[in-house]
Amino acid sequence: MPFPKDHPFRIRPGQRVDLDTFPTADEALFPVSKKEGEDLFKKLAKRIDELQTRLYAEGKHRLLVVLQAMDTGGKDGTIRKVFDMMDPQGIRVASFKRPSAVELAHDYLWRVHREVPGNGEVVIFNRSHYEDIVAVRVREIFPKAVWSRRYRHIVEFERLLAEEGTTILKIFLHISKDEQKERLQSRLDETDKHWKFNPGDLDDRALWPKFMEAYGEVFAETSTDHAPWFVVPADRKWYRDLAIADLLVKTLDALGMEYPQVEFDPKSLKIE
Amino acid sequence: MPFPKDHPFRIRPGQRVDLDTFPTADEALFPVSKKEGEDLFKKLAKRIDELQTRLYAEGKHRLLVVLQAMDTGGKDGTIRKVFDMMDPQGIRVASFKRPSAVELAHDYLWRVHREVPGNGEVVIFNRSHYEDIVAVRVREIFPKAVWSRRYRHIVEFERLLAEEGTTILKIFLHISKDEQKERLQSRLDETDKHWKFNPGDLDDRALWPKFMEAYGEVFAETSTDHAPWFVVPADRKWYRDLAIADLLVKTLDALGMEYPQVEFDPKSLKIE
Repeated sequence: MPFPKDHPFRIRPGQRVDLDTFPTADEALFPVSKKEGEDLFKKLAKRIDELQTRLYAEGKHRLLVVLQAMDTGGKDGTIRKVFDMMDPQGIRVASFKRPSAVELAHDYLWRVHREVPGNGEVVIFNRSHYEDIVAVRVREIFPKAVWSRRYRHIVEFERLLAEEGTTILKIFLHISKDEQKERLQSRLDETDKHWKFNPGDLDDRALWPKFMEAYGEVFAETSTDHAPWFVVPADRKWYRDLAIADLLVKTLDALGMEYPQVEFDPKSLKIE
Repeated sequence: MPFPKDHPFRIRPGQRVDLDTFPTADEALFPVSKKEGEDLFKKLAKRIDELQTRLYAEGKHRLLVVLQAMDTGGKDGTIRKVFDMMDPQGIRVASFKRPSAVELAHDYLWRVHREVPGNGEVVIFNRSHYEDIVAVRVREIFPKAVWSRRYRHIVEFERLLAEEGTTILKIFLHISKDEQKERLQSRLDETDKHWKFNPGDLDDRALWPKFMEAYGEVFAETSTDHAPWFVVPADRKWYRDLAIADLLVKTLDALGMEYPQVEFDPKSLKIE
């Protein structure tokens, strides 16, 4: 498995995570200043660019990055910042919003499976099948009998993907409730951010403890050797970006990718 | 579960099936003449039509019929005969041929998942994900380590579908090697059937014992309570059609479908 084993943010299989005490701002990974962090990020960004080019050229591995977070947690920002340096040709973002009628007419993994990466591809899930446990549970859309059996569906679905050649990196961007308050307030205060404000976010905010409990259980049930969860402290955006870039580099590096061998002898070819 | 429990052709979970001794022509289900059988078929066909209309109207259940067989086993004929009376609006056939480059760039269940039925829909798989075990194994496309772990993938994939509301009926059309010889010969003898002849079929025919062994193991490993296999004696076409029509009626009947209630009081509406 290509994932860093002893990473401070990696959840072990079965590990109960109490998100109330799990840091949303720490220095565990990079005890550096913001300025130093940003310089370091630039180096990692360059490395990500190289590694993704190799992934695309080799056309052998597939990388799936699952991003989950509470509202304002930084999913959009992470995608814009950390994945921006990748070649658009080899990267795709799949956003899973409220399911359409056609989607609801199928099992919940149907629309998800359609979007998984092919060879040489990087796909980022902006929200994911985990909403079909967490949101469904907290908003009481279906009873426990329905959402609880989904742990197994998802673990086995991800096993299929992994055993058939997909590397799955699941990242939870962990912010504090206070940080969310500030970010929501800024969406209300700044006209340019109004479009990002959704009154429904306040309903979810009122359910914060239930969401933390649901996510904690999700991590325990679905952080596996083949598709581990990483809970990234995300109150400080530069630190969050740095941590994710670092995780990406380590994961891609471990794939040991090579540029493909050509099947002809380049020396024997003559351009006339 | 809507499937007939004590059906003579149903494979129990873990049951080892020796296809060499399993009947390809019998009278277990309908000890009748061909003429009587055809009359009976007409009655069942009418019932299938009614039940499928209800399935479509209710828009609640999904029916997936998986058809597997050796070449000339009768998949196309079954589809034309047994499913022809259903409304094209609510039925779809998905044929899984040699995978395309895009399909090969994904896990083998990716293209399969895209084709599963939605609410109110009947989908027939003409060949299926089972080729990714059987053909892959017999033709030695991948080693055992790859195909053997697919039993679990598939059992769990089908569990997902079943638990989320799809009824899965898996049917193997079982013909004898002699019957195949006759059918292949007729494809060679009749100009109108030439297009159905594929020289590669002879390669598979030479591997007949390996195919029977591989299918036998597939039935033992993947005939589950949520997605059972039925091995239908298929040397006699009218008997095969009758047996499958009967299976369809019993399966659909057991769903207890109702026409949906409208959400308005029809009496209060006035057309002006």
